[in-house]
Amino acid sequence: MIDVYAFATPNSIKVPIALEELGLDYTLHSINIMAGGQKDPAFLALNPNGKVPVLIDHDIGGDPLVLSESAAILIYLAEKTGKLLPLSGAPRARVFEQLFFHGTAMGPAFGNAGYFQKAAPEQIPLAIARFLGEANRVIGVLDAQLAKQKFVAGDELSIADIANFGWLWKRDFVGVGLGATPNLARWFSELEVRPAFQTAIAKTNALSAG
Amino acid sequence: MIDVYAFATPNSIKVPIALEELGLDYTLHSINIMAGGQKDPAFLALNPNGKVPVLIDHDIGGDPLVLSESAAILIYLAEKTGKLLPLSGAPRARVFEQLFFHGTAMGPAFGNAGYFQKAAPEQIPLAIARFLGEANRVIGVLDAQLAKQKFVAGDELSIADIANFGWLWKRDFVGVGLGATPNLARWFSELEVRPAFQTAIAKTNALSAG
Repeated sequence: MIDVYAFATPNSIKVPIALEELGLDYTLHSINIMAGGQKDPAFLALNPNGKVPVLIDHDIGGDPLVLSESAAILIYLAEKTGKLLPLSGAPRARVFEQLFFHGTAMGPAFGNAGYFQKAAPEQIPLAIARFLGEANRVIGVLDAQLAKQKFVAGDELSIADIANFGWLWKRDFVGVGLGATPNLARWFSELEVRPAFQTAIAKTNALSAG
Repeated sequence: MIDVYAFATPNSIKVPIALEELGLDYTLHSINIMAGGQKDPAFLALNPNGKVPVLIDHDIGGDPLVLSESAAILIYLAEKTGKLLPLSGAPRARVFEQLFFHGTAMGPAFGNAGYFQKAAPEQIPLAIARFLGEANRVIGVLDAQLAKQKFVAGDELSIADIANFGWLWKRDFVGVGLGATPNLARWFSELEVRPAFQTAIAKTNALSAG
């Protein structure tokens, strides 16, 4: 049995998408971050870092595994099933490279670009320019990558695609569009129509509606 | 043969530390990021994202592997040697969790806290408070973790320790100290005296002296 604690956020949605693509059963639980649910003691006991998503796998033998960090969860699920992550060599290394490009470049740029435009108590042009500029630079790097290959880490779907999809799904918050990045737009439109993505998006959006 | 393109930066130093801990031979090459070397066409051909470090492994059969993203390089080296990354289960998942905690929480907080204090064209109190506050929150989370165990992902040294060491080694740039985090201070002082760390620090510092 797998439990997932999540909300309709860029990082949360990666986990249901991966679970749907991998055909694993799971139960989604809503942590309402708009109401500070990620700072409740019960949730902090699962993840002292106070962030969604968290996955609990009850079927690993011994104590359940309680795991945070969406990309670490993706790797765990890929290795559990032997799918969406090549087993060796350069193809495997490319997936990790893209996972960290996502986590260290796209995630912080998108998150801060959104924060300084939409959530900060004052408008700070220097900060907006820094993070929105970085967000646009990052999607340009991805677009060039996707001009050469079908998916972000090669010609097969991998967990790195699922990771990058999360923030691009929430790109309106960031003020980033896909008009200047046709290869990224092609990739996004191919992913979002996959049945597993559609199912995960519906289930994740429902977390916020409750 | 392994080549590493790097400078005396928080992310660069992780790679020589891992190579020294793993006992692998390598040649370090300086990319002077103070002079914009990471934006030279020759370097961008290695990493279109324009960031150090980059590793080239010539001994994987077929084309050399050219790999960016310091944490992806750490995983690659750990899997190449079978060291510093447990092979399965919860101990392995914990290392990935910590690698992404480092990459998505510590790295961006430390980098932006340093930027807005030391490098931005104007002083913006809101941005400094946001990122310095987050940097201090992050080391508090790590400190609580290190109160319960010897290393960040368990009781054995792993690549997650090497990842976190990089930014803590450059904490003066960030304006973060270890005075309020005694467990983190204990961990840092234990790591920095290891012969592999000492050798890597000396070699990495020499990149900037040339």
